[in-house]
Amino acid sequence: QIEKLVDELHPADFADLLQELTPDERRFVIKVCRHILEPETLNYLDEAVREEVIGLMSPVEVAQAVSELETDDAVDILEDLDENEKQRVLRAIPAADRAVIEQGLTYPEDSAGRLMQRDLVAVPQHWTVGEAIDYLRANEDLPDDFYDLFVVDPMHKPVGAVPLSRAMRNKRAVKLEALMHTEFRAVKATMDQESVAYLFRQYGLMSAPVVDEAGRLLGVITVDDVVHVIEEEAEEDLLGIVGVSETDFHAPPLETAWRRVRWLVVTLCNSAIASTVISQFEATIEQIVALAILMPIVAAMGGNAGVQVITVMVRALATRDLQPRGSNIWRVVGKEIAVATINAAVFALIMGTFASIFFGIPIGLVLAAAMIFNMIWAGIAGTVIPLTLARFKIDPAIGAGPFLTTTTDVFGFFSFLGLATLFLL
Amino acid sequence: QIEKLVDELHPADFADLLQELTPDERRFVIKVCRHILEPETLNYLDEAVREEVIGLMSPVEVAQAVSELETDDAVDILEDLDENEKQRVLRAIPAADRAVIEQGLTYPEDSAGRLMQRDLVAVPQHWTVGEAIDYLRANEDLPDDFYDLFVVDPMHKPVGAVPLSRAMRNKRAVKLEALMHTEFRAVKATMDQESVAYLFRQYGLMSAPVVDEAGRLLGVITVDDVVHVIEEEAEEDLLGIVGVSETDFHAPPLETAWRRVRWLVVTLCNSAIASTVISQFEATIEQIVALAILMPIVAAMGGNAGVQVITVMVRALATRDLQPRGSNIWRVVGKEIAVATINAAVFALIMGTFASIFFGIPIGLVLAAAMIFNMIWAGIAGTVIPLTLARFKIDPAIGAGPFLTTTTDVFGFFSFLGLATLFLL
Ligand SMILES: [Mg+2]
Ligand SMILES: [Mg+2]
Ligand SMILES: [Mg+2]
Ligand SMILES: [Mg+2]
Ligand SMILES: [Mg+2]
Ligand SMILES: [Mg+2]
Ligand SMILES: [Mg+2]
Ligand SMILES: [Mg+2]
Ligand SMILES: [Mg+2]
Ligand SMILES: [Mg+2]
Ligand SMILES: [Mg+2]
Ligand SMILES: [Mg+2]
Ligand SMILES: [Mg+2]
Repeated sequence: QIEKLVDELHPADFADLLQELTPDERRFVIKVCRHILEPETLNYLDEAVREEVIGLMSPVEVAQAVSELETDDAVDILEDLDENEKQRVLRAIPAADRAVIEQGLTYPEDSAGRLMQRDLVAVPQHWTVGEAIDYLRANEDLPDDFYDLFVVDPMHKPVGAVPLSRAMRNKRAVKLEALMHTEFRAVKATMDQESVAYLFRQYGLMSAPVVDEAGRLLGVITVDDVVHVIEEEAEEDLLGIVGVSETDFHAPPLETAWRRVRWLVVTLCNSAIASTVISQFEATIEQIVALAILMPIVAAMGGNAGVQVITVMVRALATRDLQPRGSNIWRVVGKEIAVATINAAVFALIMGTFASIFFGIPIGLVLAAAMIFNMIWAGIAGTVIPLTLARFKIDPAIGAGPFLTTTTDVFGFFSFLGLATLFLL
Repeated sequence: QIEKLVDELHPADFADLLQELTPDERRFVIKVCRHILEPETLNYLDEAVREEVIGLMSPVEVAQAVSELETDDAVDILEDLDENEKQRVLRAIPAADRAVIEQGLTYPEDSAGRLMQRDLVAVPQHWTVGEAIDYLRANEDLPDDFYDLFVVDPMHKPVGAVPLSRAMRNKRAVKLEALMHTEFRAVKATMDQESVAYLFRQYGLMSAPVVDEAGRLLGVITVDDVVHVIEEEAEEDLLGIVGVSETDFHAPPLETAWRRVRWLVVTLCNSAIASTVISQFEATIEQIVALAILMPIVAAMGGNAGVQVITVMVRALATRDLQPRGSNIWRVVGKEIAVATINAAVFALIMGTFASIFFGIPIGLVLAAAMIFNMIWAGIAGTVIPLTLARFKIDPAIGAGPFLTTTTDVFGFFSFLGLATLFLL
């Protein structure tokens, strides 16, 4: 019964099902279904669950599954195994497949070389549509699906790409050279996947040829894999901003706790710094307890305004609307300071009025002034921090939130309590 | 000179260039280049800049550009114009094109109907590969690029899809019926784009047929457009969590300030609530000023731990790894509580020790207890809030951050100052 159900499911849906089960249930389902498990299922599994499922299979079974996959998918599975297991599986793969996979593994992690599949359709420059069709009809060893014919010169360097739709609508006698895009985008095997995703997105590509240092055609990256990269990179930024290094949804509790510790440590240090700032004004607070009541407002408004800015910046850097050395940098910074000033004035007025009513006008004025300072500071920090990080090629998304709020907490407490000490005592 | 440069640029790159310019520079470039402006350029522009550029063009020019585009791209431009301008442009479009575009506009915003292009290749069931090739060669009125042949029954309902690569590698005599996928995914025109993106991602689709209520083929959605949807949806979540409703990178300062006000108002209310909580313990703080120094730590640790959780949940809901009525909900909540408990214990121990050294053991103990309560609360709130919102079909990403931190601020201040009042006075 389970077998029948699983057999009818798309591997992506079966992977989702496996992920929803408890480890015990998973073990049972794998035991029953291992002989009908489609190899693609492994690719669709989250890393934590995949590890578990692969642990339930023998190296020979894994090797068999992996050799049925396209190179990119095979590499995707092998790259996450630990060294011993990887070697055991590789040894069980037929030599020809193994060589290709091992070569894929030599490219840096998250590079175009890891994303590409080796199977592709390359045709010589002088061919016609008819010759290409005959070749495709005669050749058994083609990828399952392909979207472009890559035209290569005698050195095997790509000189153009013919989308299949163009090849199909033209007469047999038409030369491929006459149909090909020449402004196709060739990707170096060492290019980072983030840049690959940018090219696909920017130019609406379906597939892109991957070339070696000498410009010779090595493989092809297809858009379906890039869709996952785009997701991954967006996720990385989303989680990075709040200080989670990688999605840990499927990881066990202890591991999850460990992965999240890093930014909590940062938060702890930050709030320790903030506390130290407050403690400098202990005497002031002792005299005016209202300050302790109002100070979280200054910090919260600065923090949230700043996180808004830093997130918009991280996003603009990711889409390359903002370049760390672009000509529009100062305009961007200037705009954010203007935005911050407008909102600072509005909210300082509102909150200053309320505070004046409840705690007297002097305290209201000090609160308003501190809010203005801190929210403008948030606008500056929110633009300058990510731009500076990006200039030094550090990912601006990582920990942007905790980092930014430290500065606004410290600055907020300092300006509020400092102004109070100066003017209210 | 500028003309030559622009002529050589891909429309996506030209759009980026326009976005980097100041409004004045933009006006100048458009004036010089309006006659060589590729219509696609408009699609690549951000909404704010596109409005500006369209404002520089006459309705007739816009109409001319729009009628050169595929339906989906034409609709994408018209949907954002204001009513008057939309009507002026529509009137200038040839009747046949206009009807198609107007129909596209009748579908709800962000629906499959708006994403689809009407031009596609539909072939009858009984055709062979040869007949399809002859048809494609003879027919002038085809989309620029297409990836699948849709096989339709006599009622014009899609019954299968043949990827071009399969059609090309088979002999002329082979029936298309023998080659087609039958488990292709037909999309209803009213389906939300988020669900469309899910289907493409989950099943690695290149294109999907769009059908009306009766199941008849209306158009096709291609993966290049879905890539933008995926980006948009990921962006929506990323910005939503920090309380920015839409990217405002290219918007003028006043508009940007206005768009960000909403969540700052929420933050203000939140911190006012937090202040009210603190003010209840005024007498306690008066006696032990150390509490004012330490209370931000409790709030910050709870807030950041909670934002980590809520972000992971929002992400899991977006990828459908977590379903609001899934069988694994309680397991997920349980795991997050476990994670929160582990980290709460660790950090309470560290910070409690430090506080004991500086402020005495009783204060250290109260701080540790409050941190444990608040971090566990953060784990609960971080899972329960997004799940509840998703159950009521409210987007859990919108304002998740500000919302969550209110609860941890209030709970943190209350438990810390409350415990202090109970045990230290
Ligand atoms: Mg999945
Ligand atoms: Mg093989
Ligand atoms: Mg991988
Ligand atoms: Mg692939
Ligand atoms: Mg990134
Ligand atoms: Mg990356
Ligand atoms: Mg762009
Ligand atoms: Mg037209
Ligand atoms: Mg639109
Ligand atoms: Mg399109
Ligand atoms: Mg397009
Ligand atoms: Mg969403
Ligand atoms: Mg949406």
